[in-house]
Amino acid sequence: MAVNLAPPDPASLHPVAGVELGVAMAGIRKPGRRDLLVIRLCEGASAAGVFTRNRFCAAPVILAKRHLGAAPDTRALVVNTGNANAGTGDDGLERALAVCRSASRALGCAVEQVLPFSTGVIMEPLPVERILAGLPEALADLRADNWHAAAQAIMTTDTVPKAVTRRLRLGGSELTVTGIAKGAGMIRPDMATMLAFVATDAKVAQADLDAMLERAAGRSFNCITVDGDTSTNDAFMLIASGASGVSASSAADLAALGGAVEEVASLLAQAIVRDGEGATKFVTIRVEGGRSPEECRRAGYAIAHSPLVKTAFFASDPNLGRILAAIGNAGIDDLDVSRVDLYLDEVLVASKGGRHPAYREEQGTAVLAKSEFTVRVRLDRGSAQATLWTCDLSFEYVKINAEYRT
Amino acid sequence: MAVNLAPPDPASLHPVAGVELGVAMAGIRKPGRRDLLVIRLCEGASAAGVFTRNRFCAAPVILAKRHLGAAPDTRALVVNTGNANAGTGDDGLERALAVCRSASRALGCAVEQVLPFSTGVIMEPLPVERILAGLPEALADLRADNWHAAAQAIMTTDTVPKAVTRRLRLGGSELTVTGIAKGAGMIRPDMATMLAFVATDAKVAQADLDAMLERAAGRSFNCITVDGDTSTNDAFMLIASGASGVSASSAADLAALGGAVEEVASLLAQAIVRDGEGATKFVTIRVEGGRSPEECRRAGYAIAHSPLVKTAFFASDPNLGRILAAIGNAGIDDLDVSRVDLYLDEVLVASKGGRHPAYREEQGTAVLAKSEFTVRVRLDRGSAQATLWTCDLSFEYVKINAEYRT
Repeated sequence: MAVNLAPPDPASLHPVAGVELGVAMAGIRKPGRRDLLVIRLCEGASAAGVFTRNRFCAAPVILAKRHLGAAPDTRALVVNTGNANAGTGDDGLERALAVCRSASRALGCAVEQVLPFSTGVIMEPLPVERILAGLPEALADLRADNWHAAAQAIMTTDTVPKAVTRRLRLGGSELTVTGIAKGAGMIRPDMATMLAFVATDAKVAQADLDAMLERAAGRSFNCITVDGDTSTNDAFMLIASGASGVSASSAADLAALGGAVEEVASLLAQAIVRDGEGATKFVTIRVEGGRSPEECRRAGYAIAHSPLVKTAFFASDPNLGRILAAIGNAGIDDLDVSRVDLYLDEVLVASKGGRHPAYREEQGTAVLAKSEFTVRVRLDRGSAQATLWTCDLSFEYVKINAEYRT
Repeated sequence: MAVNLAPPDPASLHPVAGVELGVAMAGIRKPGRRDLLVIRLCEGASAAGVFTRNRFCAAPVILAKRHLGAAPDTRALVVNTGNANAGTGDDGLERALAVCRSASRALGCAVEQVLPFSTGVIMEPLPVERILAGLPEALADLRADNWHAAAQAIMTTDTVPKAVTRRLRLGGSELTVTGIAKGAGMIRPDMATMLAFVATDAKVAQADLDAMLERAAGRSFNCITVDGDTSTNDAFMLIASGASGVSASSAADLAALGGAVEEVASLLAQAIVRDGEGATKFVTIRVEGGRSPEECRRAGYAIAHSPLVKTAFFASDPNLGRILAAIGNAGIDDLDVSRVDLYLDEVLVASKGGRHPAYREEQGTAVLAKSEFTVRVRLDRGSAQATLWTCDLSFEYVKINAEYRT
């Protein structure tokens, strides 16, 4: 029951030259579903990644960071769903390494050129033998026009696969940015979302790619929350295959390409919220007039994480008091609440910290009855701002998480 | 459907000499229910209070602090339910003051000797005329053995009235500590709970009373959370009437009396969690081996506030991964997760950051199927500790808050 999120049209997903994807049904947790993905990169491709800051980060996260540090010339990413290989200690690292080793042998590259990613149940041993048994099927399936199947293969509690393409012209050539992501619960990325893979066929120097990734993460996956829980497995990878032969190196080219990457990342991040566990509303929270972007984000997250606010969204209840109380709890010690304005879409509902005299409740109810709306807060103490995306808290969220074993 | 929380036996609630209580049905929000409480204190009584740190604190909180600062010799507390008089600006202050003024005239004291308290719907004007009209009924009802009716009169979404008495001997005399509290949602007190009033007939100097209150708050109401939302109206008042003629002034006497106050406050705080909105489980979270009590509290609250952990509690699902992931998100940057142990009651479920080899899932399920259990975390990096109390997140929480207008 995702909020205004249609499954991507497979025909709309442009292949990225130099990037091939293959999927398999490895039976990792359940039989009969695609649960293993291999992404093969051409020689000369570069990769950058940002990862969860959860102290209990998973074995594949530890290993992916280590391999990325040892060998920036990544040749393959191996992604499994059904098991997160998190909270599994040294044995988990051994198992993730076994997967990389097997893939590296099949692909004829060094083990450090393979990055592992896992998502699914936490604290259970990775069924490495099933993954190894599934690898040949995934490798045999490798092709450039396989992004849709790849988006399906990384889903867990997602109800809709998430994939986006943007094309741009650079130096007379057509370039492609295509990405996929997964995630629906345990979503409050601290560096990246659960799993997102975005690739372009442009050639980008490593330092520029790293900067492009940081910027895109900061404006996409780091601006969403479903339930405030940061996963142990979050990773956002940006790949530049260089296979188009077009280099993005000037400031203007990097800005254009970076803009397309950011757009893809934002759409994927918003898709995760639209498909948030139990979500019935997609809510944009915009906080303006703060002293710093950080305090705007803090106020925004205080709203987005309040169970009382989220249940009011679910009920289409314009409960101004809960929103203002959440702002009051954001930890902005010197906040002067008598200067705070609050809008629901274009309706000024509270001004100077109290209910606006002209506001009628039917107006607020009409906004919140929509499947998408914006909560806009003006703090009136500076010029910084921040935008976040979140969803409501419904019966369904409790049902999903009382029944599903992450 | 409170968790193991029986309504107090009215006969078990000892009157506190020098303290009288009167209730009325003022029809503040709904007709036919007790919604107004007056507590009258004898001459010479002293009062101390701690209040919410929410920046959007309510008009009665502002006024109660102001009056307490101007006149420590409080003579009356006027408490209404049904309307929180929060987010109501200067008009809200005027209305709260009108209530104090009316009560002070009737009782023949200064307006500053009356403290106002409100709880209920936020951001709606306080129906002051109904409160003024109800005051004579409440004043006519004033008597010392009225604690049970008082506990009922301050309920909002509470399903069970909360009241506790403890008696102690001091200097050959019998002393009493009796208290009431209310609260079920928007519970993550930052200085105190939503509303709690505890009184003793001992005579206690103001500075000692303040210290006793701080200590009791720190070990009771400041150790609970239902949903992580700090109310705009939290207040915890401690009253010493002195009517017993017994002074508590020596360190030993203050410790004995303080212990009784702390016990009453803890039982009231736990009662709030037991009656948490939608609660089906009462969970004690104990974090040990931290470098400071503060980091133990942070880890404890990360567990207690995680919607994924709370829904797993609801489902009796010993989802170790969610608990460890929450600890990993507590913001303890240098936490070495390979030293963390986790117990469910006496069962060692995770050791050194991973599943304990001898642990079998049936053991965890058996613990979580109980209506009360303890989650114990050992960080193994110091000797500090902290204990919190919380509840699970159920369908019913969403239902209550999607339907109730706070």
